[in-house]
Amino acid sequence: MFMHNKRLMYTVRVSETNPMLASLMLEQFGGPQGELAAAMRYFSQALAEDDAGRKDLLLDIATEELSHLEVIGTIICMLNKGVKGALAEGDMEDAELLRTITQGGESHTSSLLYGGGAALINSGGAPWSAAYVDTIGEPTADLRSNIAAESRAKIIYERLINVTDDPGIKEALGFLMTREVAHQKSFEKALYAIEPNFPSGKLPGMPEFTDTYYDMSQGEGDRRGPWNEGEQWQFVSDREQQAAVDGGDGGCLVGLTEQQQETGDAMALRTASATDSDPTTGADLGAGEGAGSTKGNIVSRLN
Amino acid sequence: MFMHNKRLMYTVRVSETNPMLASLMLEQFGGPQGELAAAMRYFSQALAEDDAGRKDLLLDIATEELSHLEVIGTIICMLNKGVKGALAEGDMEDAELLRTITQGGESHTSSLLYGGGAALINSGGAPWSAAYVDTIGEPTADLRSNIAAESRAKIIYERLINVTDDPGIKEALGFLMTREVAHQKSFEKALYAIEPNFPSGKLPGMPEFTDTYYDMSQGEGDRRGPWNEGEQWQFVSDREQQAAVDGGDGGCLVGLTEQQQETGDAMALRTASATDSDPTTGADLGAGEGAGSTKGNIVSRLN
Amino acid sequence: MFMHNKRLMYTVRVSETNPMLASLMLEQFGGPQGELAAAMRYFSQALAEDDAGRKDLLLDIATEELSHLEVIGTIICMLNKGVKGALAEGDMEDAELLRTITQGGESHTSSLLYGGGAALINSGGAPWSAAYVDTIGEPTADLRSNIAAESRAKIIYERLINVTDDPGIKEALGFLMTREVAHQKSFEKALYAIEPNFPSGKLPGMPEFTDTYYDMSQGEGDRRGPWNEGEQWQFVSDREQQAAVDGGDGGCLVGLTEQQQETGDAMALRTASATDSDPTTGADLGAGEGAGSTKGNIVSRLN
Amino acid sequence: MFMHNKRLMYTVRVSETNPMLASLMLEQFGGPQGELAAAMRYFSQALAEDDAGRKDLLLDIATEELSHLEVIGTIICMLNKGVKGALAEGDMEDAELLRTITQGGESHTSSLLYGGGAALINSGGAPWSAAYVDTIGEPTADLRSNIAAESRAKIIYERLINVTDDPGIKEALGFLMTREVAHQKSFEKALYAIEPNFPSGKLPGMPEFTDTYYDMSQGEGDRRGPWNEGEQWQFVSDREQQAAVDGGDGGCLVGLTEQQQETGDAMALRTASATDSDPTTGADLGAGEGAGSTKGNIVSRLN
Amino acid sequence: MFMHNKRLMYTVRVSETNPMLASLMLEQFGGPQGELAAAMRYFSQALAEDDAGRKDLLLDIATEELSHLEVIGTIICMLNKGVKGALAEGDMEDAELLRTITQGGESHTSSLLYGGGAALINSGGAPWSAAYVDTIGEPTADLRSNIAAESRAKIIYERLINVTDDPGIKEALGFLMTREVAHQKSFEKALYAIEPNFPSGKLPGMPEFTDTYYDMSQGEGDRRGPWNEGEQWQFVSDREQQAAVDGGDGGCLVGLTEQQQETGDAMALRTASATDSDPTTGADLGAGEGAGSTKGNIVSRLN
Amino acid sequence: MFMHNKRLMYTVRVSETNPMLASLMLEQFGGPQGELAAAMRYFSQALAEDDAGRKDLLLDIATEELSHLEVIGTIICMLNKGVKGALAEGDMEDAELLRTITQGGESHTSSLLYGGGAALINSGGAPWSAAYVDTIGEPTADLRSNIAAESRAKIIYERLINVTDDPGIKEALGFLMTREVAHQKSFEKALYAIEPNFPSGKLPGMPEFTDTYYDMSQGEGDRRGPWNEGEQWQFVSDREQQAAVDGGDGGCLVGLTEQQQETGDAMALRTASATDSDPTTGADLGAGEGAGSTKGNIVSRLN
Repeated sequence: MFMHNKRLMYTVRVSETNPMLASLMLEQFGGPQGELAAAMRYFSQALAEDDAGRKDLLLDIATEELSHLEVIGTIICMLNKGVKGALAEGDMEDAELLRTITQGGESHTSSLLYGGGAALINSGGAPWSAAYVDTIGEPTADLRSNIAAESRAKIIYERLINVTDDPGIKEALGFLMTREVAHQKSFEKALYAIEPNFPSGKLPGMPEFTDTYYDMSQGEGDRRGPWNEGEQWQFVSDREQQAAVDGGDGGCLVGLTEQQQETGDAMALRTASATDSDPTTGADLGAGEGAGSTKGNIVSRLN
Repeated sequence: MFMHNKRLMYTVRVSETNPMLASLMLEQFGGPQGELAAAMRYFSQALAEDDAGRKDLLLDIATEELSHLEVIGTIICMLNKGVKGALAEGDMEDAELLRTITQGGESHTSSLLYGGGAALINSGGAPWSAAYVDTIGEPTADLRSNIAAESRAKIIYERLINVTDDPGIKEALGFLMTREVAHQKSFEKALYAIEPNFPSGKLPGMPEFTDTYYDMSQGEGDRRGPWNEGEQWQFVSDREQQAAVDGGDGGCLVGLTEQQQETGDAMALRTASATDSDPTTGADLGAGEGAGSTKGNIVSRLN
Repeated sequence: MFMHNKRLMYTVRVSETNPMLASLMLEQFGGPQGELAAAMRYFSQALAEDDAGRKDLLLDIATEELSHLEVIGTIICMLNKGVKGALAEGDMEDAELLRTITQGGESHTSSLLYGGGAALINSGGAPWSAAYVDTIGEPTADLRSNIAAESRAKIIYERLINVTDDPGIKEALGFLMTREVAHQKSFEKALYAIEPNFPSGKLPGMPEFTDTYYDMSQGEGDRRGPWNEGEQWQFVSDREQQAAVDGGDGGCLVGLTEQQQETGDAMALRTASATDSDPTTGADLGAGEGAGSTKGNIVSRLN
Repeated sequence: MFMHNKRLMYTVRVSETNPMLASLMLEQFGGPQGELAAAMRYFSQALAEDDAGRKDLLLDIATEELSHLEVIGTIICMLNKGVKGALAEGDMEDAELLRTITQGGESHTSSLLYGGGAALINSGGAPWSAAYVDTIGEPTADLRSNIAAESRAKIIYERLINVTDDPGIKEALGFLMTREVAHQKSFEKALYAIEPNFPSGKLPGMPEFTDTYYDMSQGEGDRRGPWNEGEQWQFVSDREQQAAVDGGDGGCLVGLTEQQQETGDAMALRTASATDSDPTTGADLGAGEGAGSTKGNIVSRLN
Repeated sequence: MFMHNKRLMYTVRVSETNPMLASLMLEQFGGPQGELAAAMRYFSQALAEDDAGRKDLLLDIATEELSHLEVIGTIICMLNKGVKGALAEGDMEDAELLRTITQGGESHTSSLLYGGGAALINSGGAPWSAAYVDTIGEPTADLRSNIAAESRAKIIYERLINVTDDPGIKEALGFLMTREVAHQKSFEKALYAIEPNFPSGKLPGMPEFTDTYYDMSQGEGDRRGPWNEGEQWQFVSDREQQAAVDGGDGGCLVGLTEQQQETGDAMALRTASATDSDPTTGADLGAGEGAGSTKGNIVSRLN
Repeated sequence: MFMHNKRLMYTVRVSETNPMLASLMLEQFGGPQGELAAAMRYFSQALAEDDAGRKDLLLDIATEELSHLEVIGTIICMLNKGVKGALAEGDMEDAELLRTITQGGESHTSSLLYGGGAALINSGGAPWSAAYVDTIGEPTADLRSNIAAESRAKIIYERLINVTDDPGIKEALGFLMTREVAHQKSFEKALYAIEPNFPSGKLPGMPEFTDTYYDMSQGEGDRRGPWNEGEQWQFVSDREQQAAVDGGDGGCLVGLTEQQQETGDAMALRTASATDSDPTTGADLGAGEGAGSTKGNIVSRLN
């Protein structure tokens, strides 16, 4: 059961309103690396988790992320406070109000559609989607997802700090950023408390392909490093050995019933392409006479 | 520049057609943990990467994932080969054809909308979305995302192997699963070849919050473990100390101009709620007389 | 700040596992009328609300909805408990496992992609989207949205109760359904405690169009009722009076600069269609000779 | 059957082109509170409605909303007329054209992708989604949704009026806004013409939870009002009484077969976390020596 | 202005209810090739079109497509009529009702979420999205899009006819399918009435690349045909001549300011990867001792 | 199998960084008419194609489009190179950095969320969606979709060329644009190499509706042209003849079982609307006394 206390987890002090800056902050409210995504990632894992320790950990952090969502959402609302009232009361000149909400970012949408509130969209206006939540219900995979997610969220906060010069906002963002670091540490501990944790799941891999490295991109710029060099790795750059690595012909086969075969043949016949004709096409019809000459010269146009 | 060779990376052998199974395989074709998501994750990182070694690594693996996409897509098309022809040629009885495409999974949509091809949807019918790609352009975060993604993809292949009894499909899925393990190893090496790599980015955290653990979920089921216990951690369970951790009042403040203040007051007045009235509401109007008695007894209905 | 207690708001008792039923319950976990949508609707309103009474109300109910989300998510996880283990441990025959996860609903996706957890998708597999949240930041509109949302959620629970025969689930759903009724009552009171609350916002309408009813759909089936009949309404069924109701010509005009006019004319000329020709088209090319006769008779095919 | 007349429902007069303003108007063309959402909401209800009166009402208003969609779309096209030609004919200097389409809002996308037409996106660039349509097929719920939707649409028009100073646009928007008020009146009449209409649906609630108010958010800022105070309400603020309100233990139970139990145990064992170890983690590996000292001081950086 | 007449464009006669079949029909109501997509494609083109002939054509067909949307939606509602009542009145046994709504397709979602109405989703449950509408505001491109769209819609109707054995539905679908053929003919005429219409737009291509065919996919299966063979085409299969076709080095360059260069260098240094080390990784930590041996043998597991 | 060569297909030369311009280029990277959409459209068709010639063609062009994706993505990364470093290293003044990323387009999101990389979003911030891929698995329809898609892509490149004045970018865009023209030619040849190719599919239309044109939009602006005039067409403008064209009553019928009929009647009775009452509504309650007079005069406000 969730409960709520009216005090924020971190006090919010904003120097002055700025709807454009508010719209950038949405990235951590309704964006893919934001607090709702974090809370829902951990909460959905917690529900399905049977290990008491991990379940507790996941609920602790999910709940804290909801509290962070409240902090970042409050910052956004404070930054929007001026435009909210002006839109609602209509007491600013039309043209001035228009200028105010179109100074950059997505402040125009934040104002017109959401009335200066904090909406679950990212800084580009895309609605939050559960497609951001990568929980799959296997702890050694999900904990790695959590570690990566905390690492990403830390970076987004760092970028927001770098574009903000309001000290109160900077400080609150610094707190939120720091907590991502702490959470990553906890999830790392939880991952390594499962032994073994690699590879995830129960099935081992096929040994002949576990330590092979296929050099699929070649040319100037090829490099070797610990990820494809050393005793561990079999490095395959011969293109012949990269195809049909099972030793087969690299083709595909399926068993068909006789009726399926017949139907397939009928379809093939009906839609066969006459490779030896040179049919007149719609483009031929549409090119017109002398089209090239009437259309000018792209070379001069391009340069 | 990409090039293509007609041979598949792994030969595909399918015993018999099965549109329902095909629709489950879509999870690794157009699903969030599937091969397109993998290819696009690494490709988009490669484009922006300036470190020659990582750029090469990312291009190698991105290209291999595209080759995997081709393998899994080919499996799907083989499994659908029967229904594809039957739908196109219309030579099966209507009712039998209907039964064939509604035996489970999303085979009805794969058949009707995609004609038995391999569509970029997941096994539940959701179109592939770039929201699945969590690239953010910082290598220590992105490599962690890659590690997690490989771990998740490995598990989805394991589950598909567990529900398939066609040996040719099982083998090809085994290959694809194994390559995720190999890729994870490479990405791990690449992450740890950056020193230091934790925390991601450049800004350090605020020291007072880096090793604090907030016990936000309490009650029976509380557990301690290496993620919140030991020398490293400061464990905070007192609810008072969890709120307003900056020592402030946990409120929010914003500097307003005089006009903003006045407009805000006007709006507040206009939309004030009369907390001391007990207004008649639409629900009151709509409840009708004796509604409760005429609606029966939920308790008996529920039991 | 949010806090969490390990006890659920309502005890969950499930008789036996059933992954298909679990996938139907997702509708109230990750569906448009589900608990996350409710929680986020009220929470986002609360953040931007300046009226202390409404802010408190919105936070109370948002927090309760999160607690409901936990209850419905727990039901889903209990129903999936069998398939979760079987998939992870791979100790069920492949074919049996396949049958288990394809008995209906979206249990195939719940199993393969989410491992038997509770995912933020609806019963049709569509990921939860913030597009479901209709908060716009104006209390008299948002409260009406809340009233409607509670009414819809009540109905979805009623339908789920009607397809479930597990008494423990029925009871928990009954509780969740009832709370929607209680919440609707509260939101109704909050709406009517604002006076006046209709029409929403500050601008009045244009009087000549406020009580007019346009009879746009005509023919057998036309009906009159209190929504278009009576002293209040001016009923307009004459098609002439429905068009260009401002008394203008129903056309459109825009002031263009000279250069814009010239550019527009050039574009018009370039893309003008020759209405007096009868050009040969791609379809003409593609129709082939005697196509009609070789294609059989649709009438017989259709009947 | 739908029919169309070339005259607009309201004559459109635009003073001068302005692609930025056009992109804001998209909110009511392809946005969540816009005219397509309205038309589709009522149209989908009408199709399933068996009550002749409501079916007629829904078709009347759905058809009118389509006519409104045409008016707002025409305004957008007029505002974009200059940029449309300039892009197509390429007769403006590149840099000037670039400036023209990046003056704010989403005019860059409206121009580049849609060529200055009216696209079904909102002012933030999100494509219109049927997720905006909240029809559920129960008249007492759907009518409430319609009432709320009209109320929201009215507000968005009010905001657009507040940022526009072109008198012709202002007037047309005023008409569209006014019609939302009229439609809300009609839907209210239709709702209250069903008796009783509250609660929606057929199942009554569980009496013990119908008039209870759970005070889930506590602390400074708690308020009472008609929504939680008075004879009607039982107000519960004791945290103990908010959890497990059924009188149970707030836990969760599911009946498992013996095999399910064994599989679950095996999985638990395999993924158990060693809570008494303090494992070295990837973050430990990655933190490097003296990382803290080389990374500078966040406190000075933040202030 | 749109108007509506209560008579359908084609009379709907359904033999018996069938919620599963209804959910398949959704493909042409709320699917990507369905009637709403068609109507909105043409309507949005019509609004921006300045050529009177094409504008009229687009409005004629857009309006007809709306009338088709009504026909297909009505079929869906008729097929759902039984389940709609049963769900609402709750007068069928729970288990029987559950069976009724889970017989295949997405009938479970159509029932639970939409109450047996016609929802704007496709047969796989994905909500209709304006991403389906490919209008870009250039007539020679848009008309080609329309031609293609009509061709696709024709095929989806053909498939639906092939899985339906209700003669009344078959006949109505036959009508709808036929109209797509007629519309394609009209759009073809409109395209070829513009001369020249190929290539679309105003800029000609660079002559050296207009008739070149790059043979990017090689190996067994290579074929020649009129699309890459004949006088018109320059066929390039040499891999060297496929890369950097401009004669440059195939690299990328950007002019940077001195400060940008310095910042870039600093970032490169900070995130450089040590290619000559072989760092211990998280996977190394997590692999455990003898993990391979304890995990069993994938080869035997797979076969 | 895919392979990669480090050289780009076209050398990229960018004069100076410009994050705003970069965000516009996203349209062809992650937009609906962009290179990923093209590659996936052809790749998914190739997988299911059984005709060797078309399969080869589709793979050739799909692979080339991936190479184009790399070119456009590289342009974007070059344009973002300055902001990428500045954000990561934090060595620019906060306010200056903020200005840099908010000069227009979606550069704010490209910077904050994607760190200056090339993200799979369009220029409006919408994530790439497989909903853009219109493959349906029937060659005569899919080839028409490809022709249309190439035509659209050509236009978007033309528009981007028109807003760019960097000669290196202009040249590379010119190459990409030209290739779309070449691809359209190939697809046209492939379409017309199938005979007959119109109408798509196997079922003929119903002859009585194949050449009928319904004049659904009437009034000033009606036009005739080859699409509705001439020997081929039967032109129907009489409204009576447009409805119920099958000669029926334009109604809808479904066969119901007795129980279904009874249930339906019960539902109708329960939700019947009292058309002869004039109920007091929520809006009546909320309108307040003299609301009109206190709200000012919209006419003066609007003018």
